[in-house]
Amino acid sequence: MTINSDTKFLIVGLGLIGGSYCLGLRKQGYRVSAIARRKETIDYALTHGIIDEGSISADAGLIGEADIIISGLYPHTFYEWVSENQKLFKSGALLTDVTGVKGCIVYKIQELLREDVEFISAHPMAGKETVGVENADEKIFVGANYIIVPTEKNSEEAVNASRELATILNFGHISCLSPKEHDEIIGFVSQLTHCIAVSLMNVSDNDKLVNYVGDSFRDLTRIAKINENMWTELFISNKNALVNNIDRFMNELKDLRDCIETEDADRIKQKMICSTKRRSLFDKKQE
Amino acid sequence: MTINSDTKFLIVGLGLIGGSYCLGLRKQGYRVSAIARRKETIDYALTHGIIDEGSISADAGLIGEADIIISGLYPHTFYEWVSENQKLFKSGALLTDVTGVKGCIVYKIQELLREDVEFISAHPMAGKETVGVENADEKIFVGANYIIVPTEKNSEEAVNASRELATILNFGHISCLSPKEHDEIIGFVSQLTHCIAVSLMNVSDNDKLVNYVGDSFRDLTRIAKINENMWTELFISNKNALVNNIDRFMNELKDLRDCIETEDADRIKQKMICSTKRRSLFDKKQE
Repeated sequence: MTINSDTKFLIVGLGLIGGSYCLGLRKQGYRVSAIARRKETIDYALTHGIIDEGSISADAGLIGEADIIISGLYPHTFYEWVSENQKLFKSGALLTDVTGVKGCIVYKIQELLREDVEFISAHPMAGKETVGVENADEKIFVGANYIIVPTEKNSEEAVNASRELATILNFGHISCLSPKEHDEIIGFVSQLTHCIAVSLMNVSDNDKLVNYVGDSFRDLTRIAKINENMWTELFISNKNALVNNIDRFMNELKDLRDCIETEDADRIKQKMICSTKRRSLFDKKQE
Repeated sequence: MTINSDTKFLIVGLGLIGGSYCLGLRKQGYRVSAIARRKETIDYALTHGIIDEGSISADAGLIGEADIIISGLYPHTFYEWVSENQKLFKSGALLTDVTGVKGCIVYKIQELLREDVEFISAHPMAGKETVGVENADEKIFVGANYIIVPTEKNSEEAVNASRELATILNFGHISCLSPKEHDEIIGFVSQLTHCIAVSLMNVSDNDKLVNYVGDSFRDLTRIAKINENMWTELFISNKNALVNNIDRFMNELKDLRDCIETEDADRIKQKMICSTKRRSLFDKKQE
């Protein structure tokens, strides 16, 4: 399928990311409906022009007319929702998602799904330290990375439609990874970083720290404000890759620690020269 | 002593922080001279209105007329410079610094110093991932933390003058810590964070990471671009406190790792609730 001006979108799960998808799509002129659990969420989204239509139940009309259904649900809820409601999907509809883990969910959904509907998984690498549709903001996607996670079951058309969706939402770099590659890389760049921030914030209960810190501590702990329900599920769903990445990081930090203890200045400097060089690759593209 | 409109400042060591002090002081109308190693540095600072006068040698005139001398040198160079040049200091002058470690240097300088000159140590909690006077910017101090590090040898007048200096430069919160308290807290909020960033950046040599990261990885590695000479000296000068803080952090991270491995969702959530609560203290004051 190809996205055109008549394409109708349905977002299921209207949180920060789902709401931001709605805003981005509506600003580009698309018709967007949503299903959420709470009436207040739908009311807010209608009042603030975030969606055209919404429902707190699995409304057969809204679901049946959607060309592209985007899940903004947590992994396990996503599975349950598709299981219960796929009977209402339009034949030929495309299902996609924003889930932060892939290996544990993508194959299961594809296995479960009707033959005449396709699921192409994707992960927008954008977020905020807030939750809820009230904080939705389509600008978080501008220039951000978008990872499409196809399997052997996916068609080239579905991958292309996912790419089109990312382009409509103004993502920067779009790439494809297998579910296994995705989970390993995300276990490193996203989940490990959240583990570090949470742990760093939890080391000290000194409530005067705020008077002594510089930007470095603020930067490293920004994401220590975290949605505990979502991230706990994501961590446990990807535990092998994540634990492995924590171990790799701790080995590297332990090595630096030992260099400091033994005053091995040359080796400390080599590590800093390496990190400076690697980090500078990030500046050119996106800062 | 009290700072007034006739107070003459001398900055020794014209790097990023020294240059930013010059800019901040000159913009408030003070007369500011500087001593640096390289002629290009002084020429740049003169051409760009960063200083009124400058020299690449220990100019007796510049040193002798300064009411407040601010060292922007690395710890060991600072000691050598004072040792060689204190004979030129004006009687009653105040000496201060911006050094990132205190225990290893403050007492030594106070021990060394002439009786008629006072050294009051301080640490501005501000910086950038760049070096040199070319990147000087007095705005990095606006709202930032400033830590005065007095010892028993210091007078109340010197502490007050240090406070005045911080106010002139538009620092936000000004506090006092002993050298030992300073080194323990800075070993945590500043040095540990740099060790984490360097190590995180060094774990993976995947040069495509830039295509997959979100803001979390960018934030946590910003300070992995690091001046290896300065930070290696700072780390080794404060190695006991720093190694202790790395160990505390690794214990906390190891505990989270084990919760993930054993799928102890409740304990993971408790840790996230704690980190979210603690991090929110930082938002109110300075973000």
